[in-house]
Amino acid sequence: MASIAVCPGSFDPITYGHLDIITRGAKVFDMLYVSVMNNSSKNPLFSVEERINLIKEVTKNLPNVKVDEHSGLLVDYAKSVNANAIIRGLRAVSDFEYEMQITSMNRVLNDEIETFFIMTNSQYSFLSSSIVKEVSKYNGKISSLVPPIVEVALNKKFNR
Amino acid sequence: MASIAVCPGSFDPITYGHLDIITRGAKVFDMLYVSVMNNSSKNPLFSVEERINLIKEVTKNLPNVKVDEHSGLLVDYAKSVNANAIIRGLRAVSDFEYEMQITSMNRVLNDEIETFFIMTNSQYSFLSSSIVKEVSKYNGKISSLVPPIVEVALNKKFNR
Amino acid sequence: MASIAVCPGSFDPITYGHLDIITRGAKVFDMLYVSVMNNSSKNPLFSVEERINLIKEVTKNLPNVKVDEHSGLLVDYAKSVNANAIIRGLRAVSDFEYEMQITSMNRVLNDEIETFFIMTNSQYSFLSSSIVKEVSKYNGKISSLVPPIVEVALNKKFNR
Amino acid sequence: MASIAVCPGSFDPITYGHLDIITRGAKVFDMLYVSVMNNSSKNPLFSVEERINLIKEVTKNLPNVKVDEHSGLLVDYAKSVNANAIIRGLRAVSDFEYEMQITSMNRVLNDEIETFFIMTNSQYSFLSSSIVKEVSKYNGKISSLVPPIVEVALNKKFNR
Amino acid sequence: MASIAVCPGSFDPITYGHLDIITRGAKVFDMLYVSVMNNSSKNPLFSVEERINLIKEVTKNLPNVKVDEHSGLLVDYAKSVNANAIIRGLRAVSDFEYEMQITSMNRVLNDEIETFFIMTNSQYSFLSSSIVKEVSKYNGKISSLVPPIVEVALNKKFNR
Amino acid sequence: MASIAVCPGSFDPITYGHLDIITRGAKVFDMLYVSVMNNSSKNPLFSVEERINLIKEVTKNLPNVKVDEHSGLLVDYAKSVNANAIIRGLRAVSDFEYEMQITSMNRVLNDEIETFFIMTNSQYSFLSSSIVKEVSKYNGKISSLVPPIVEVALNKKFNR
Repeated sequence: MASIAVCPGSFDPITYGHLDIITRGAKVFDMLYVSVMNNSSKNPLFSVEERINLIKEVTKNLPNVKVDEHSGLLVDYAKSVNANAIIRGLRAVSDFEYEMQITSMNRVLNDEIETFFIMTNSQYSFLSSSIVKEVSKYNGKISSLVPPIVEVALNKKFNR
Repeated sequence: MASIAVCPGSFDPITYGHLDIITRGAKVFDMLYVSVMNNSSKNPLFSVEERINLIKEVTKNLPNVKVDEHSGLLVDYAKSVNANAIIRGLRAVSDFEYEMQITSMNRVLNDEIETFFIMTNSQYSFLSSSIVKEVSKYNGKISSLVPPIVEVALNKKFNR
Repeated sequence: MASIAVCPGSFDPITYGHLDIITRGAKVFDMLYVSVMNNSSKNPLFSVEERINLIKEVTKNLPNVKVDEHSGLLVDYAKSVNANAIIRGLRAVSDFEYEMQITSMNRVLNDEIETFFIMTNSQYSFLSSSIVKEVSKYNGKISSLVPPIVEVALNKKFNR
Repeated sequence: MASIAVCPGSFDPITYGHLDIITRGAKVFDMLYVSVMNNSSKNPLFSVEERINLIKEVTKNLPNVKVDEHSGLLVDYAKSVNANAIIRGLRAVSDFEYEMQITSMNRVLNDEIETFFIMTNSQYSFLSSSIVKEVSKYNGKISSLVPPIVEVALNKKFNR
Repeated sequence: MASIAVCPGSFDPITYGHLDIITRGAKVFDMLYVSVMNNSSKNPLFSVEERINLIKEVTKNLPNVKVDEHSGLLVDYAKSVNANAIIRGLRAVSDFEYEMQITSMNRVLNDEIETFFIMTNSQYSFLSSSIVKEVSKYNGKISSLVPPIVEVALNKKFNR
Repeated sequence: MASIAVCPGSFDPITYGHLDIITRGAKVFDMLYVSVMNNSSKNPLFSVEERINLIKEVTKNLPNVKVDEHSGLLVDYAKSVNANAIIRGLRAVSDFEYEMQITSMNRVLNDEIETFFIMTNSQYSFLSSSIVKEVSKYNGKISSLVPPIVEVALNKKFNR
């Protein structure tokens, strides 16, 4: 049986922390769908299309990774691509409780799809897209936190 | 590539919480080694052999589960059985930090073996072998917490 | 002396998690006021009146429960109904710290009214009104999370 | 119906933190049993009898408090004194998870007895019997942490 | 070498909790800059100028404290005043993780400036500007939480 | 006024995590005493003298660091060396609560000495002397976790 996993997220934009989780997941699963949540209620910096293009670019050397988007319930999306697993990165205690709540709800909705958590590399354990955007806005140095192509895209967004 | 995972633990004795994690892991990985840590410095209630026999009995309907034991470093054992993944259950925040420490160290020792965490079913989220032993010692009702064969074994240990 | 307690909340809408806490509190206190916080700054799905009616319906078999609403400081409301206790459910660590902050402030305001925390049943420990609304919006199955009458009300809100 | 609660603990020795919880509990419940856990596996500084006598002395002005001891399962003891509630103090996050585990187990054993948590006064939120003993051993000033009679008893134990 | 520290914050308005941290920091560092973050995206109750004036008033007896404001990256501001340290108060676990994230990012941006955390006095460990504003809005008693001049300013804001 | 700080610990043995905290503290304080706690009740791998010698060796390039030992109450020791500050490293949430308890007690004992927490570099955030000893015992690779001289000392202890 092929093992297929989904790695969902906002990826606004993708960071080295996300890329670390994707790379680790891609080593164990036959196919990994990295899927951008199309959540209209949030106010993202990058459009879904821009986010997908950045992820495609930085994961192009991972042959079993597909980049996609979804809206609605994650378990419904996972089922639609025949995934039997969801992959999530875990950084800190506050992540942990939120992830537990989401996982618990997903099990109520569909107990056939299992959620696996991967620990983020400790050098990225306090990294988030929000803090990257905040720092980039004030022209702080982010080259150790995001791939070069993402740094370029952030500079464009902030008119530099 | 076959995906092979190790699920290590003391299992002194195995509970429905452990069994839930093992069952979930066995659905995604091709082969799952449930391996009893042979740690001489602890003072277990059941011998390694007794613990292995109880696990074998309660997982006999899971064809891709093998029950084993190990001593020394977990990553060395994982490599010896060609595993590329370690499976751990996560219950609560205190678990989380301890597990992060162990995972971080295992990555330093061998970054080829990835650790995946599975959330324990919420009905078992406050269950541990220690509390089962404490309650059984005072003849409290544990039939909802451990398989019948484990309940029998606990009764024998406490001379009932 | 009669023991009178207040169980405050948004209840937008009431879930089986809330009902579990209310039922447990009603077993120990002579009278339990379940009181909807009328907080104009939030943007609720259900009006205060709708929320009160749903709570009344699902607690109608609990004779010592009264359903009410309040605005302003909780300790002032509690005093107005002669309550000497406040009842709050505790789910997770993030709850815990927020509740500690509120309780600490309430003690500064009125140290005669004691706050008692009850642990939510573990099967509801990751349940919240917010996640119920999110899932219901996308037509996910919530019958194990809210009473039937609440499920009907949610379906109406989302035009089904 | 009379509301009867049990407040269990090691009380080795009783501190102002314990006394704060007992006083708050005694205001709401008709009868409060403060009961010393007689747990042979620990290595206490004070004997059960000494601990009971110290608690009796410092709670003598609380007419509805009875001081007692118990061994075995707490829920069995609670039932034997017709209690329908257990009272526990909550200080910090680490307390919280341990208490959740115990409460969850007690519900499995007897769901008729409800556990209520009371927040420790913030000035005692980092106080424990262990740290009091450690400081007293080195003759540190503890008069703001324990009643005078307990300070005297500690001085005697450490041969001063 | 003179040790110069920055204590940044929203201070909307300053509480006894903030003042406790400032006083403790001022005892060890030669110079302490208390600096109001001028963050346009938040919706403060007091203007930056009002907040600065309140801080100046309540710290006027601390000769080595200077009150200032800043926008942009904190590390850039710290460098501009020749500070080699940042001082932050720590109250609870949720604080802790947020502070770790900020500190980790600040180290990436400038590893020459060290962040020191001071534990808030336990009697203020659940105090925040937000809860003070909420309580003051409903005319609750806050005289034990903020200096008299701040209480007066809050009363004015709420038209009393 | 010279600022003098104490950095206490077991240092059994010193790791790169400890060294990171010591180096950061030494940049801000005029004098930093690294002091080994001589706590007879623990069962250390290295003697106090061995631990002191290892610390001296790895901090010899830090001119304002003095290596020392102490027993009894930390605040009494701090006072004896005229320190006005205590430095502690913070790694994770479990550290945090324990440190809060110790700090709170130290303030009761002597409020003139302030405790400052420094965040451990994230690459060492899950590192402890205990885990280093455990891994070294099984001959795991620890060269990225401790200075070379400590690795040699550990090899000797485990007869290699």
